[in-house]
Amino acid sequence: MTSASSPSAVQPIGWLGDRLRLLDQRLLPMQEEYLDCRSAEEVAQAIHGMAVRGAPAIGIAAAYGLVLAVRRNPASFEQAEKVLASSRPTAVNLRWALARLRGLWQNGGGADALEAEARRIHAEDLSQNLHMGELGAALLPQGARVITHCNTGALATGGHGTALGVIRTAHAQGKIEQVYNTETRPWLQGARLTAWELMREGIPSKLIADGAAAHLMRTERIDWVIVGADRIAANGDTANKIGTYMLAVAAQRHGARFMVVAPSGTFDLSCPYGEAIPIEERAAQELTEFRGQPVAPPGMQAFNPVFDVTPAELIDAIVCERGVIENPDARRIAALLR
Amino acid sequence: MTSASSPSAVQPIGWLGDRLRLLDQRLLPMQEEYLDCRSAEEVAQAIHGMAVRGAPAIGIAAAYGLVLAVRRNPASFEQAEKVLASSRPTAVNLRWALARLRGLWQNGGGADALEAEARRIHAEDLSQNLHMGELGAALLPQGARVITHCNTGALATGGHGTALGVIRTAHAQGKIEQVYNTETRPWLQGARLTAWELMREGIPSKLIADGAAAHLMRTERIDWVIVGADRIAANGDTANKIGTYMLAVAAQRHGARFMVVAPSGTFDLSCPYGEAIPIEERAAQELTEFRGQPVAPPGMQAFNPVFDVTPAELIDAIVCERGVIENPDARRIAALLR
Repeated sequence: MTSASSPSAVQPIGWLGDRLRLLDQRLLPMQEEYLDCRSAEEVAQAIHGMAVRGAPAIGIAAAYGLVLAVRRNPASFEQAEKVLASSRPTAVNLRWALARLRGLWQNGGGADALEAEARRIHAEDLSQNLHMGELGAALLPQGARVITHCNTGALATGGHGTALGVIRTAHAQGKIEQVYNTETRPWLQGARLTAWELMREGIPSKLIADGAAAHLMRTERIDWVIVGADRIAANGDTANKIGTYMLAVAAQRHGARFMVVAPSGTFDLSCPYGEAIPIEERAAQELTEFRGQPVAPPGMQAFNPVFDVTPAELIDAIVCERGVIENPDARRIAALLR
Repeated sequence: MTSASSPSAVQPIGWLGDRLRLLDQRLLPMQEEYLDCRSAEEVAQAIHGMAVRGAPAIGIAAAYGLVLAVRRNPASFEQAEKVLASSRPTAVNLRWALARLRGLWQNGGGADALEAEARRIHAEDLSQNLHMGELGAALLPQGARVITHCNTGALATGGHGTALGVIRTAHAQGKIEQVYNTETRPWLQGARLTAWELMREGIPSKLIADGAAAHLMRTERIDWVIVGADRIAANGDTANKIGTYMLAVAAQRHGARFMVVAPSGTFDLSCPYGEAIPIEERAAQELTEFRGQPVAPPGMQAFNPVFDVTPAELIDAIVCERGVIENPDARRIAALLR
């Protein structure tokens, strides 16, 4: 790790030709164990069971899963595609990756062509992340003090990461003074995964409770809040992990700037504004239990939205692999994506 | 529970004449067990071990502990006072309660006088809470939808509670449509204790992650955010559990009003403004472990402030037993406390 454009030291997805090696994210941060998947079914199980998570990472894993199936038995393409597609039905990247391989297959491509395409999907994601890292890092001042939320690192992508990729690149450039990463309730991806990635790379970071971010901004200088995105509407309104919007509101009050980092595939131009993005709500259990132990009284109800929407007016810059959109609005976004 | 001024159904501190019965808050919400303390030492252990928590509750328990000591052996006053005072060295209410009993003792009061004073301290706290409940509830609209933070209920006080006392009274008046209570990381007092109190009393409530509050305010009507206070500066700046300030910032953006409920003893007029209030920071372990199990990588650093300061400009009303201070500032606070 001497250059800002080196791939990350964390390798959650490794392709070994005859098997896919996945870092088992369920065991992090306490155990760093790898799963070797030798069939599409094993990859599908790893996705369904959350050994691998993060939309880009899932798409890449599924593509390699299809290659494993075709290498063993070319006649199994359809069945393997079905098993992989159903392993996380709502993941857009998963279906997009499988569709790329299907296109080749239908045009007579064989196992070698599919493997090359899976490697290309993987490499493109990493390459986009590295490019976004450069673009985002260029926005940071020397001695930057930043807050990030959830996990948007090598673990969630083909490597390097989106928001965490910007922090990685900026750190390699010697620009990062201090990172604060939120624990990100209820799943604690920040405490478990982002903290693990930051420590692995020696990036100076401190964990904070989600509710401590505004106090931190009030009492310490914070230059940027840097987050990823799950979906960006045509006007720049951004859906991301619950808690993102609260950070944006606090950042505005304290003069911290707010950066969204996501590949251009994250834009949904069919969605005019944030109110049109459906917000998934999940089970109360995610708040009322911790690792199977109750932390709230039995029967306690909860409001547990997975995502929230940060309006474009609170976003200073959206960084995608095609460029940086400052003060994003529908016109600027359309111009960059055209 | 038919009247707004009834004491709470939750009785965390019960005086039985020869013993003090404490609800063991460490076991909540899963077990509702009581500890019977028959000596000052046992009361001190209960305080030190966190079986009883919340500044007013600790003061009341300590006063009864001193009564138990004097009933057994009048010569043990000094020793018992010392043991109790050291059970939670920083608790102001504890020393204040012990000082009230010492005053009587030094003027020749016996065990009966001390017991009467302990009961008075207990009753005064409950009475103040009930009065604040009425004053605060009067500010709420019919069908109120409110957010509360941490635990400020019967468990933290002599009964009824401060912020949660306002919600209790308003509920008894039929004014509450929906409460949302934050889980309150890192200690989860909201998930463990406030949820338990709300369910016990049948007050409609949903648990939310701390980071979900701004999204909730954006997508649902919230009339008031209602919180307690640990210390209020002369100008109205209010120190309270970490996360409070973030709620106040989000409330301002969404037009939700913001209420602080605390007895007049919470004001510190020697402290001119919030920046002068020292903010205790606690161990990283509180964020990196959960019930002794690690949730972050070993050695991960954390920034773990216990409190934050909400500036008076974000507070619509401070409710204390002497009255309501709307749009609090130094002049209005001095006028009410004079």
